[in-house]
Amino acid sequence: MINEESKKIAVIGGGIAGMQSASVLGRLGYQVTIFEKSERLGGNVANWNHLFPHNENATDMISALNTTLESQSNISIAPSTTVLNIANKQNSVSITTPEREYSFDAAIIASGFTPFDATKKEEYGYGIYNHVITSVELEKVEKQNQLSRYVHGKSGKVGFVHCVGSRDEKVCNGYCSKVCCITAIKQAIEVKKQHPNLDVYCFYMDLRLFDRHFESIYREAQEKWGILFIRGRMSEVNEDIKGKLIVRIEDTLSRRPMKLSLDLLVLMVGMVPSEDTQRFASQLSTKSEEDRFIIDNNQILVEQNTGISKGIFAAGTAKSPLTVKETLADAKSVALNVHFYLNQTNL
Amino acid sequence: MINEESKKIAVIGGGIAGMQSASVLGRLGYQVTIFEKSERLGGNVANWNHLFPHNENATDMISALNTTLESQSNISIAPSTTVLNIANKQNSVSITTPEREYSFDAAIIASGFTPFDATKKEEYGYGIYNHVITSVELEKVEKQNQLSRYVHGKSGKVGFVHCVGSRDEKVCNGYCSKVCCITAIKQAIEVKKQHPNLDVYCFYMDLRLFDRHFESIYREAQEKWGILFIRGRMSEVNEDIKGKLIVRIEDTLSRRPMKLSLDLLVLMVGMVPSEDTQRFASQLSTKSEEDRFIIDNNQILVEQNTGISKGIFAAGTAKSPLTVKETLADAKSVALNVHFYLNQTNL
Repeated sequence: MINEESKKIAVIGGGIAGMQSASVLGRLGYQVTIFEKSERLGGNVANWNHLFPHNENATDMISALNTTLESQSNISIAPSTTVLNIANKQNSVSITTPEREYSFDAAIIASGFTPFDATKKEEYGYGIYNHVITSVELEKVEKQNQLSRYVHGKSGKVGFVHCVGSRDEKVCNGYCSKVCCITAIKQAIEVKKQHPNLDVYCFYMDLRLFDRHFESIYREAQEKWGILFIRGRMSEVNEDIKGKLIVRIEDTLSRRPMKLSLDLLVLMVGMVPSEDTQRFASQLSTKSEEDRFIIDNNQILVEQNTGISKGIFAAGTAKSPLTVKETLADAKSVALNVHFYLNQTNL
Repeated sequence: MINEESKKIAVIGGGIAGMQSASVLGRLGYQVTIFEKSERLGGNVANWNHLFPHNENATDMISALNTTLESQSNISIAPSTTVLNIANKQNSVSITTPEREYSFDAAIIASGFTPFDATKKEEYGYGIYNHVITSVELEKVEKQNQLSRYVHGKSGKVGFVHCVGSRDEKVCNGYCSKVCCITAIKQAIEVKKQHPNLDVYCFYMDLRLFDRHFESIYREAQEKWGILFIRGRMSEVNEDIKGKLIVRIEDTLSRRPMKLSLDLLVLMVGMVPSEDTQRFASQLSTKSEEDRFIIDNNQILVEQNTGISKGIFAAGTAKSPLTVKETLADAKSVALNVHFYLNQTNL
């Protein structure tokens, strides 16, 4: 067996995928360095309020991960540090930051996603009308308990548009972002909990509630909370003179065009590979697909642990849209691949 | 650190989850025993022909897993061995077979699923009409190249019914089985490849094509292969005097009732926890839900590795419907949890 303590691993990106894989590798005995571009760890999840399906507090999850990392003396964190370049050399991986070049035995790219830029879907009025916000912004609003900025009084209507920037060839994102359907339902329930008198609508194409507990949350949304699900694509959003949003949508089930007046419209923005993810994908010349995620040749079976290229692995949403649970499981799995890779080369 | 070689782990069930977790634990140095009820390893996947999304050969996958297991001298396999009881004692896990009682340091339950019994959906005519078969049977038919037993000549119609035994409270399965939508599309494409002149229909409620590559397979099915997708629930299936199937369905998009004559109807059967899975769930008194899977209290974060109860863990489809890829990733992740659990108790 190898001496793990003498092996150094770089984790690029300090979101939950990076934190989780660093934590696993730390516990396995390796010297781990996390490079994080921003000042703090936590990535996208740090902006979230509650998580589905069990309503976990996102801040608590990040704190738990932070605590685990801090308790391990063989893990060091380099905040506010951008990785400019990753390359594999003979028997090592080279990591370049603006300050210097480092040498590691292996590296995990966990550079994640950014939310889809909703201004690209001009027809939804984002950036034009104040009462059109994204799902990410709604999380912040709920975290700060400021929903009443948008809805007040005893009645009113709130709409959620699924698939904003997902399954949409016009904006070059053909893929499904996986989390938006269940997030919309989670957020719709949150809105109803705070303002039970509001009418809440979800405008969807398919309800991709694939996980075991998602279906029952969907039923709860309908039966307990009275959330209305309308199958249809929204064609346009405007504002009337009183500042109310007017949305037009075709209900594809009843085949009727609908016009609705809403107080708040929430756009469920999909996942786009982050700028760093796209840059690393091109630096490493991983087979480039139109959707710009990192293509991982690494196979799922235990014995195949080659990584993207020798010693370089990718974890989490840098590879594909994933739920929080899936991201954490993938990060664990990739950490184990790195362990087996380092053992293999040293047998 | 602990001495892994002195620690013994039982893996109950030799499907892909059991094989993968045994393989990981073997590589980590533990003494592993796989208990498998049937004569051979491979579980449900061994009955499969090709896998999505990349059309992997299922037999090759099982062979690769078998090879890895055989190459590890610290892994032993007990075929044709039913585990009657699992219980945790002071510092060990007791496993009882008809022959004797064993003591292990930890155990993984990987007792998986069985396909939904299609005779319970009487209205679909399964077990009554010869040309109504299940998705599992179609895999066998394709493996043996016998599709022409059902369809011959230059024209004809084949239908696939999604959600058979899934999302269906009447048969006590409220949950989505996750893999049926993409499997239907994979199978529909296979049928079209062999018989391009056939008309192939998919009857669905929602298309749960959640994974990154699924959406493009769906588009390929429509654009390249001309497979027809009809949103609606089938109400009944009959046979006419010529032996053709007559199906009635409401197209919920066009709101028209349809009557179609088919040569073959394939029922996409969902996943039900296997008998053993249900028995272990009740033996271990894991919080029982109506869907009868094993409830795993084990949290996703690295530091929380308690298992279902001390030393007992569950992996794969014993916990929830999962794709092959997800099952393998989960098995890896659970194996790592067991490793950390055994390290923790011995620090």
